[in-house]
Amino acid sequence: MRKVDLLVIGGSAGGILSANTARKVYKDISITVIRNTKTVMVPCGIPYIYGTLKDTSKNIIPDKMITDNNIDLIIDKVTKINKEEKYVLTENNDQINYDKLIIATGSLPIVPSVIGNNLENIFSIYKNEVYLNDILQKIKDLKDIVVIGGGFIGVEFSEQMQLNGKNVTLLQRGDKCLRRNFDAEFSAEAETLLKENGVNVRTNCKIKEFVGKGKVEGVKLETGEIIKADAIILGSGVKPNSDLAKDAGLKINDNGAIAVNEYMNTSDADILAVGDCAEKVSFFTRNDVPVLLASTAALEAKIAGYNVFKNKLTRKNKGTISAFSTKIYGATLGAAGLTEKQAIENNFEYVIGEFNVMDKHPGSLPNTKKIHMKLIFSKYSGIILGGQISGGDTVGEMINIISLAVQQGMTAADLNTFQVATHPLLTASPIAYPINGAAMNAIEKM
Amino acid sequence: MRKVDLLVIGGSAGGILSANTARKVYKDISITVIRNTKTVMVPCGIPYIYGTLKDTSKNIIPDKMITDNNIDLIIDKVTKINKEEKYVLTENNDQINYDKLIIATGSLPIVPSVIGNNLENIFSIYKNEVYLNDILQKIKDLKDIVVIGGGFIGVEFSEQMQLNGKNVTLLQRGDKCLRRNFDAEFSAEAETLLKENGVNVRTNCKIKEFVGKGKVEGVKLETGEIIKADAIILGSGVKPNSDLAKDAGLKINDNGAIAVNEYMNTSDADILAVGDCAEKVSFFTRNDVPVLLASTAALEAKIAGYNVFKNKLTRKNKGTISAFSTKIYGATLGAAGLTEKQAIENNFEYVIGEFNVMDKHPGSLPNTKKIHMKLIFSKYSGIILGGQISGGDTVGEMINIISLAVQQGMTAADLNTFQVATHPLLTASPIAYPINGAAMNAIEKM
Repeated sequence: MRKVDLLVIGGSAGGILSANTARKVYKDISITVIRNTKTVMVPCGIPYIYGTLKDTSKNIIPDKMITDNNIDLIIDKVTKINKEEKYVLTENNDQINYDKLIIATGSLPIVPSVIGNNLENIFSIYKNEVYLNDILQKIKDLKDIVVIGGGFIGVEFSEQMQLNGKNVTLLQRGDKCLRRNFDAEFSAEAETLLKENGVNVRTNCKIKEFVGKGKVEGVKLETGEIIKADAIILGSGVKPNSDLAKDAGLKINDNGAIAVNEYMNTSDADILAVGDCAEKVSFFTRNDVPVLLASTAALEAKIAGYNVFKNKLTRKNKGTISAFSTKIYGATLGAAGLTEKQAIENNFEYVIGEFNVMDKHPGSLPNTKKIHMKLIFSKYSGIILGGQISGGDTVGEMINIISLAVQQGMTAADLNTFQVATHPLLTASPIAYPINGAAMNAIEKM
Repeated sequence: MRKVDLLVIGGSAGGILSANTARKVYKDISITVIRNTKTVMVPCGIPYIYGTLKDTSKNIIPDKMITDNNIDLIIDKVTKINKEEKYVLTENNDQINYDKLIIATGSLPIVPSVIGNNLENIFSIYKNEVYLNDILQKIKDLKDIVVIGGGFIGVEFSEQMQLNGKNVTLLQRGDKCLRRNFDAEFSAEAETLLKENGVNVRTNCKIKEFVGKGKVEGVKLETGEIIKADAIILGSGVKPNSDLAKDAGLKINDNGAIAVNEYMNTSDADILAVGDCAEKVSFFTRNDVPVLLASTAALEAKIAGYNVFKNKLTRKNKGTISAFSTKIYGATLGAAGLTEKQAIENNFEYVIGEFNVMDKHPGSLPNTKKIHMKLIFSKYSGIILGGQISGGDTVGEMINIISLAVQQGMTAADLNTFQVATHPLLTASPIAYPINGAAMNAIEKM
């Protein structure tokens, strides 16, 4: 039995940053992080193990943010939380008493409940090096890979596996990939890239069963068609890993996430929760949104680490704005805030501003790429609701300008006259900077 | 004689965008742009004519923002403004009457007043295609190039000429290049890159005279040393081109710039001025700042074009924040707001936040570069005063996040918990995003 001031369960983005932030704010407390894997995978880096990296050991989050900061690290699995007596029990029969507890247990993959889902070579994506390395070894000599799910994981796995010489089919239930995060015209850009590069993209596919004897041999669709598969990657979404919290009697919301307030407090005064296991509310509507992102976990961890012993007004969770980016076949797509589709679903009256421009100036410079920007503003107020961008690598940070503008409640007028640094080799021209231009385009329609 | 509702003098960033914005806001007015060159050079693209582009015709701003928008274009030179009777006269003996006039006459290079400054092959950088093409032809077979001035123009010309096979010496008066825009540690990064790549960087150099017979042969320093030069590029700064306005009786400030208010109105009710010829005030101090940038001209043009017939509260110039970026030898440097040196000069009590991180995650991914970020916050309030970043290409847009944060008066707490989109191939890790991290580093010291 031992006793710590702060115990953090979970060693990925949410856990590491909760502990690390608490250490910076509360210099004298004892902090322990407990996690159930020897190493921690960079969560968003997992698809790249199967193409660019070819090695799980290149995708490890180093422990130095913990070990260099006087934080104890225990590799063990928490089996029970006793919130009344403020301790946890572990698989190795340890008992750890805590003053404050932060739960950062993440999420678990959803496995489609169809016949044959337990066949060999059907892989969910668990964030566990041993498991992921096992996939890497098993698929080495396999050729036909079916990826299920057209979200970020599915799209990125498809690209990486194809680049690695596999024959890849991407099966999606909906009519477009990335449809939760982008409007149709941006989804179409991603889909065109996948198809042009040889990924067999199949939309509107409902899976009936996985077929095979022992090992998977194919996916049978509801239409009866069978798609050959030596292995299947499941990218069918994730769910909060909240059983431990539920069993402890903490309040769980309708999506199975641990209920939290804006300071990341759970229903128990001494327990906080962050990341995929914790409730997410929308910045715009306060509705529950199932946006499970490492970057959101990081935000919440900074709030929880700061507030764990004392709440501070400067560290409140204003809600998730859903900021994403991805890169496939050299093209980048980014989104922050509401898409047009989501603006409609949430009953916002809106105006669209669009702008197309080259990402260097003059456009005659080498390696120039086209930027397509779409911004969505609330009508009358002119406040930005969201934006989507496609283009080259610089979109990765440009979407964070939109992300900041959304969080600041900026208007189209603000964004039209926002001062920017421009440079021929780095950005669009100052007379046609896309954020300025898309804002003006919206103003003309207001 | 003709009559237009809006006349714009000047066809570069300020002129184009003034006319283009006015067209979008005032649908029915007649607009004419008058400029004195057949083509318009991308101003910041000029150094690249002498390396990457090798051709002035690849560095032209297309006329379509004017001609596609029902704006008349006249190639002629205005010789006189009569503000009492509201007309201008031109070199081709035209008279154009106006209702409103926007002056966007830009700037002119400063030529050092030392002996020999009229020798052949000493080149100022006029933004004129014919003139710039003449330089291109003349230096083709010359070897030893001396670039004078360690600002952006000097540094970028040095890099491009060196890449183009010239033997380049960069002479600067001060002890560091880019010292007006960066603190010493960032200037040092630029200087190291130049030196490592073979540019002969000379600091603390005072020029006594240019030597030669007819053609320049060298630069004589005050120490007596002579540096061999087949040609000299002058990057010794620019001054507002305001003689036309001065002769018309408009108020001119102590720096020789046309005095303007926050709506870009001059001392005459019907004349506005934008860009390098117009007064610049600091966002922080309201002091006059000589920051002559195309991006600043673009901002002012959007304000002037919007307000030219009616002032609008949503379009006020809050002052120049000085946002810059440059790229040399594959490395990018960006700055926005005050440097530490400027914070001291302006008597701000400040706290520094720094952060170093790789620009992809995991760092084992190919082509990963190190980001060095330095943010400056006002002590106690925590409001951001400025930031500087070095790294790869993504710094070009990342500095615009800082630029936006400065314009919004954001605090270190805001920036620590600012939600970002992250991706392995595009950004730092969500647990170590540099803006979040540098803000936290400052908070720890507050």
